[in-house]
Amino acid sequence: MSISADLADVAGRARIASRALAIATRAEKDAALQAMADALLARADEVLAANAEDVARAEADGTPANIIDRLRLTPERLEGMAQGLRDVAGLADPVGEVVRGGLLTNGLELRQVRVPFGVIGMIYEARPNVTADAAGICLKSGNAVLLRGSSSARASNAAIVAVLRDAVADAGLAPDVLQLVPGDTHDSVKELMRARGMVDVLIPRGGAGLIRSVVEESTVPVIETGVGNCHVYVDAAADLDKALAIVLNAKTQRTSVCNAAESLLVHEAVAEAFLPRVVTALQEAGVTVHGDEAFAAYEDVVPATDHDYAEEYLSLDISARVVPDLDAAIDHIRRFSSAHSDAIVTDDQRAARRFVAEVDSAAVLVNASTRFTDGGEFGFGAEIGISTQKLHARGPMGLPEMTSTKYVVVGDGHVR
Amino acid sequence: MSISADLADVAGRARIASRALAIATRAEKDAALQAMADALLARADEVLAANAEDVARAEADGTPANIIDRLRLTPERLEGMAQGLRDVAGLADPVGEVVRGGLLTNGLELRQVRVPFGVIGMIYEARPNVTADAAGICLKSGNAVLLRGSSSARASNAAIVAVLRDAVADAGLAPDVLQLVPGDTHDSVKELMRARGMVDVLIPRGGAGLIRSVVEESTVPVIETGVGNCHVYVDAAADLDKALAIVLNAKTQRTSVCNAAESLLVHEAVAEAFLPRVVTALQEAGVTVHGDEAFAAYEDVVPATDHDYAEEYLSLDISARVVPDLDAAIDHIRRFSSAHSDAIVTDDQRAARRFVAEVDSAAVLVNASTRFTDGGEFGFGAEIGISTQKLHARGPMGLPEMTSTKYVVVGDGHVR
Repeated sequence: MSISADLADVAGRARIASRALAIATRAEKDAALQAMADALLARADEVLAANAEDVARAEADGTPANIIDRLRLTPERLEGMAQGLRDVAGLADPVGEVVRGGLLTNGLELRQVRVPFGVIGMIYEARPNVTADAAGICLKSGNAVLLRGSSSARASNAAIVAVLRDAVADAGLAPDVLQLVPGDTHDSVKELMRARGMVDVLIPRGGAGLIRSVVEESTVPVIETGVGNCHVYVDAAADLDKALAIVLNAKTQRTSVCNAAESLLVHEAVAEAFLPRVVTALQEAGVTVHGDEAFAAYEDVVPATDHDYAEEYLSLDISARVVPDLDAAIDHIRRFSSAHSDAIVTDDQRAARRFVAEVDSAAVLVNASTRFTDGGEFGFGAEIGISTQKLHARGPMGLPEMTSTKYVVVGDGHVR
Repeated sequence: MSISADLADVAGRARIASRALAIATRAEKDAALQAMADALLARADEVLAANAEDVARAEADGTPANIIDRLRLTPERLEGMAQGLRDVAGLADPVGEVVRGGLLTNGLELRQVRVPFGVIGMIYEARPNVTADAAGICLKSGNAVLLRGSSSARASNAAIVAVLRDAVADAGLAPDVLQLVPGDTHDSVKELMRARGMVDVLIPRGGAGLIRSVVEESTVPVIETGVGNCHVYVDAAADLDKALAIVLNAKTQRTSVCNAAESLLVHEAVAEAFLPRVVTALQEAGVTVHGDEAFAAYEDVVPATDHDYAEEYLSLDISARVVPDLDAAIDHIRRFSSAHSDAIVTDDQRAARRFVAEVDSAAVLVNASTRFTDGGEFGFGAEIGISTQKLHARGPMGLPEMTSTKYVVVGDGHVR
């Protein structure tokens, strides 16, 4: 597929703007972030009016209420977006950080230094607050960004980007560090995926279908995010009170997020004691349990299939299985996990050590809820997404993950 | 394209073997590496006989002498391969290294720890020594590897892999950590590129055409290596003796490598003094200079086109241009460089600082030859290739670059 003149133009302007941004000082970038926050609040009416258009169109299209809720902006949500930008201004600048360095034997100075990627493409669904979040994180990490949000949020995203670009320009940086991808058909997404050389990294955020299509079709390097079929394994040596609290928290504290638990594994040694308690507690919390034979002995438990074990429900549903031992738990997780976040509840040091070593997921948790896999919880201050791939970044991605590095070699006429 | 049963079988066995290798101790891995080195020497006759077959076939096919030289193994080259394996045994184990860690505010322990990728695919051309190098580096970094060498080296590679697999097994590790990709048609390369989920990372090493096709077609995440259109810029404030030595070294010390210089830029303020010296010295060293008008005023300089500036010659050729200032040098490099290694020769601190900040290449060198961009020179002890992409690894890749990370989160019943 060829790249349209529109996209080539936008990407070319992003490249030029990215060069000045890459060498902007932290003070200049932070001033722009504060200006962006101020502008969002000062021009709230404009953004809310555009959002009202999107909401009205979605309602007319019969969009489900929960999707409309994600789409809707309020003064409070705008405050949150502005605060997010101010929070990013408060974070350390990753650009220029010396990752490693020293003197080589021949006296050459060698330093590996963080540098921006250049131009980042973001493809995301629904929530317009992501537009401001991504703009802030990319700007602070020295990257120009091309944003391709959901077409259902096009008026909101256009208004937010217009406001933020004006603020960036007022703060003395090039507004082209922040642009919308032209067009809102599916073709514009496909083009972005083929813009190798124009776009340095593509980050898709959204459902499994979006992620899969980007990963399959993109020639631009991709950081895959977000699909989470997360497990909680309750070991033979688990403290069952803590296990119950962790299962409930991981499943029910927020169901629509990628770090929510979707599957429960219980060691058979504690099944008799734990199953009645956990089934009752989950059902009282409104959760439908899709269980194996052992679980299905309890009332209202729905028989589970392999399809259930593979499912990222993102709803008040959980699959559940009794396993004969730790090996079987690890095997189950290897087979079904999306390698996002998997937890063991145990007081057995050897079981914990084996689980941590042998479960190959972005985050492996011991006696803690899967819900902790989050940039905010990890103390990163900002998060652009949670990587479920192994290349470049894995787990929650903060500012350092939005950079590459370069080697700087300084000599005095050195030759080999 | 579907994955053949043969590749699926090999990849499946690699996955299983990779799990045990991922948790093998350094002592176990180093013992295997020493056994591999011993076996290469003990069974040298077997490997050399296989290599003689490949060489005979290449000669019968009329292969050029320089390619046959790359293909040919000798007792000395086998010694070198064995020593390479022993060197890798002497390097620190990257697996398990804590990249960062600490306590979160709620008391959760958080650690980011290096872990192997899992299964690595290597696609490479000609030289059979890469087979042993890649096997050693992948094993030490805890990764199973699927090797797809040049079909011209198929007997050599098969013999080397057979010897190394036996040694791995004798040392108590699963030999399936090290396998050849079945089949030696181009289809087997294509299949490997589509084996997403079976292969975690693909590393192509070879010419620009190979790299481009892998990058374009692969759905497996790729680390792009090796194309180098490297520049030396001689600034107005250059020490011209050092500049001459650096240009000659970068161009002529070894021409067939990716960190050799392919293009020379000279500030006009020193053109009159430097051009006669550098043209003469290069020509005396057998180099053909493809120059702009200023250079073409000298005898035997061939007029250069944009095609020359874009070319990775890998031969005794260099493109050359006079630039009016540092900005023009940076612009030229931005336009033509493959972003591998670019050098400035200057005693002007401000020019050096600007060049380092504004030239966006994997390595930026000041008063040093581009030939220093090398894992060995950088002190990494082993190198699997030089990444020219920005994602994951950039520049020479040693053992740490052959790993991903996972987050380990340890609590005591923590919930959100």
